[in-house]
Amino acid sequence: MSNYFSRWNELAAIKKELADRDWFYGTSGNLSIKVSNEPVTFLVTASGKDKRKFTDHDFLLVDAAGEKLEETSSKPSAETLLHAKIYNKTNAGCVLHVHTIDNNVITELYKHDTHIDFTGNEIIKALGSWEQDAKVSIPIIPNVAHIPTLAEQFDRYVIGDSGAILIQNHGITVWGKDAFEAKKYLEAWEFLFSYQVKLATIKHVVGSF
Amino acid sequence: MSNYFSRWNELAAIKKELADRDWFYGTSGNLSIKVSNEPVTFLVTASGKDKRKFTDHDFLLVDAAGEKLEETSSKPSAETLLHAKIYNKTNAGCVLHVHTIDNNVITELYKHDTHIDFTGNEIIKALGSWEQDAKVSIPIIPNVAHIPTLAEQFDRYVIGDSGAILIQNHGITVWGKDAFEAKKYLEAWEFLFSYQVKLATIKHVVGSF
Amino acid sequence: MSNYFSRWNELAAIKKELADRDWFYGTSGNLSIKVSNEPVTFLVTASGKDKRKFTDHDFLLVDAAGEKLEETSSKPSAETLLHAKIYNKTNAGCVLHVHTIDNNVITELYKHDTHIDFTGNEIIKALGSWEQDAKVSIPIIPNVAHIPTLAEQFDRYVIGDSGAILIQNHGITVWGKDAFEAKKYLEAWEFLFSYQVKLATIKHVVGSF
Amino acid sequence: MSNYFSRWNELAAIKKELADRDWFYGTSGNLSIKVSNEPVTFLVTASGKDKRKFTDHDFLLVDAAGEKLEETSSKPSAETLLHAKIYNKTNAGCVLHVHTIDNNVITELYKHDTHIDFTGNEIIKALGSWEQDAKVSIPIIPNVAHIPTLAEQFDRYVIGDSGAILIQNHGITVWGKDAFEAKKYLEAWEFLFSYQVKLATIKHVVGSF
Repeated sequence: MSNYFSRWNELAAIKKELADRDWFYGTSGNLSIKVSNEPVTFLVTASGKDKRKFTDHDFLLVDAAGEKLEETSSKPSAETLLHAKIYNKTNAGCVLHVHTIDNNVITELYKHDTHIDFTGNEIIKALGSWEQDAKVSIPIIPNVAHIPTLAEQFDRYVIGDSGAILIQNHGITVWGKDAFEAKKYLEAWEFLFSYQVKLATIKHVVGSF
Repeated sequence: MSNYFSRWNELAAIKKELADRDWFYGTSGNLSIKVSNEPVTFLVTASGKDKRKFTDHDFLLVDAAGEKLEETSSKPSAETLLHAKIYNKTNAGCVLHVHTIDNNVITELYKHDTHIDFTGNEIIKALGSWEQDAKVSIPIIPNVAHIPTLAEQFDRYVIGDSGAILIQNHGITVWGKDAFEAKKYLEAWEFLFSYQVKLATIKHVVGSF
Repeated sequence: MSNYFSRWNELAAIKKELADRDWFYGTSGNLSIKVSNEPVTFLVTASGKDKRKFTDHDFLLVDAAGEKLEETSSKPSAETLLHAKIYNKTNAGCVLHVHTIDNNVITELYKHDTHIDFTGNEIIKALGSWEQDAKVSIPIIPNVAHIPTLAEQFDRYVIGDSGAILIQNHGITVWGKDAFEAKKYLEAWEFLFSYQVKLATIKHVVGSF
Repeated sequence: MSNYFSRWNELAAIKKELADRDWFYGTSGNLSIKVSNEPVTFLVTASGKDKRKFTDHDFLLVDAAGEKLEETSSKPSAETLLHAKIYNKTNAGCVLHVHTIDNNVITELYKHDTHIDFTGNEIIKALGSWEQDAKVSIPIIPNVAHIPTLAEQFDRYVIGDSGAILIQNHGITVWGKDAFEAKKYLEAWEFLFSYQVKLATIKHVVGSF
């Protein structure tokens, strides 16, 4: 567990950056970073905190089931189960979940679809697709208040060591092999959402609405 | 009154955060925090100051009638009466009132309605409603230049220890049991307004306009 | 001229704040503050500088004709003549001119009008009108590349000790008795423009376009 | 090569400013600054870094062919060839390439055009055109994944010592005689794009779509 402090600092740096973008309205969002592989342990944001503040209780260590491994009065984020799904099935090293206006609006624009496809935008290279006319696709799953049920739906799309899932009128979850990669993917997806939403305000023709 | 300084600092921290979001255009907005219960006293923003600046005169202590309890040349905010209504009727510990473009625009979109309802967005959990398909509702009252008249209209919706009211083309007032909760609610409402306004720019079908 | 340094600092503080909002794209915008009354002298931003940077050459002292009173290689802003008009005709203490997307867009939306009127928004109180249903009005003048000609058109609307003028697809000029007041007015007008522009994206019915 | 450190610092300052605007989503964007003329050498951003961070490996020196001149594990940006084209053909001293939502959206709005013309906006003066009703024009070239092919298309529009090119759904490349000028032009173009995109959300009549 020698990674504990360096991982804490990496996650705190990302939390700071996303807080600067104001992506944690109403204490929403949750972040995690893997600390060890065998057994799987990860640091995850504590539940219900103001993520614009920085304290010694921002994160806590949990096991592969999302149960806390530290004596602390903090509770892991209510959605820790989604993070655990990813660490258990893949080699991901970092998971980021945020609510933004645009990642909510786009799920409403495409609410009759199971996926949103993007093609022809240069930022797609940041998602690892460098060929001409590469297409990227992100699944949208319905939002369900019961977290274990949500986790089941979510689980179907947890496939590779990096990936992203939109939850209807809720937000995006992105994962990658490390903090750097997860944040890069998050930014690329948010760029695509903002691009598409802005075009929609002009062209009024997006998806199936 | 041993709470005076710690409450001052809490309110100053919130003022800083909302100023960073540029939510105090034209010296608009006013904030308060309860200092004592018996008798009720609270710190409230001084009238007409630039809330992007930080001075020893930013707040002043007032009583349950909104009258100042300190020797100072500052005057309490012109809308202190609205804050007093809340502290007198409920156990709220903090009241936040801000003008934002989106909280003004949304009252114009719904100007023929007395309430705006929101459902199906995850951020609603931040308002304390965790069940599936929870609905939240915020009243809109007409804006009246005469503050005692406005306070009367306002008073009808001051019901629980937390709550929120929109004033037509003016802004939102949010209260909660403490500064943390009031700010969390404020952010959740603003998220919902921005979401709805952005959708409206695409779908052109919102409310009854 | 004992006011020189305190006025410099006041103007630098406003420049910092407006730069933080990114209101000086492409070295646009110019600011000034009165230093003495008899004779009239004022500090004005130097021409062509990046206003996000802070140096000893940001401002220079000029006389009532806009001619520089200091040995310096800097030149006064090309639009110093507009500032001089205001200091010569009124008791204004500060003049702010900025280009923003919304203050440009709104002049295009109302391009067939000579004025834009606003009523019913609470922020209007910041402009000094406290009565119910107060109306405020801002003139729009055509943009003319030849500054003396522009100054003549501008001059017709330089009436009171505070005021504001929009120049078509160019920006706003605001003045007030001091730096605090000028900035307060600027923020109030920009709030109204952003509000109106955002409503227009939804309702598609604004002004005479 | 005595310019190395002062140029490094100039480029780092611009990188900081553009990072503050969040114009490097998903590690996109690349920047360069000329260090010597004979032979041509320039500092260019290293490939694939998070440009919100500041390290000793942010830039590396390359020659006129874009080959690195330093022992370093960093690689020059994948698009260094475009920068090299400009330094080889012109006297430009700085080249900036960024992806923004608006510079992507506008290429989609004008996707059937080879150029976008702007006229009648004051910010055009920042691009060096001071006469009444000056028109500025920016070419749009198709985005091609194969960089040498893209560089060829790009090359046709690399004409003067300052200039700008839009790449379809990719971003803008701007150059000028030095860092100050390149950034000024970048801001002026982005202002025009944002203005036009915002108008399009209201008027729904832009370009040929």
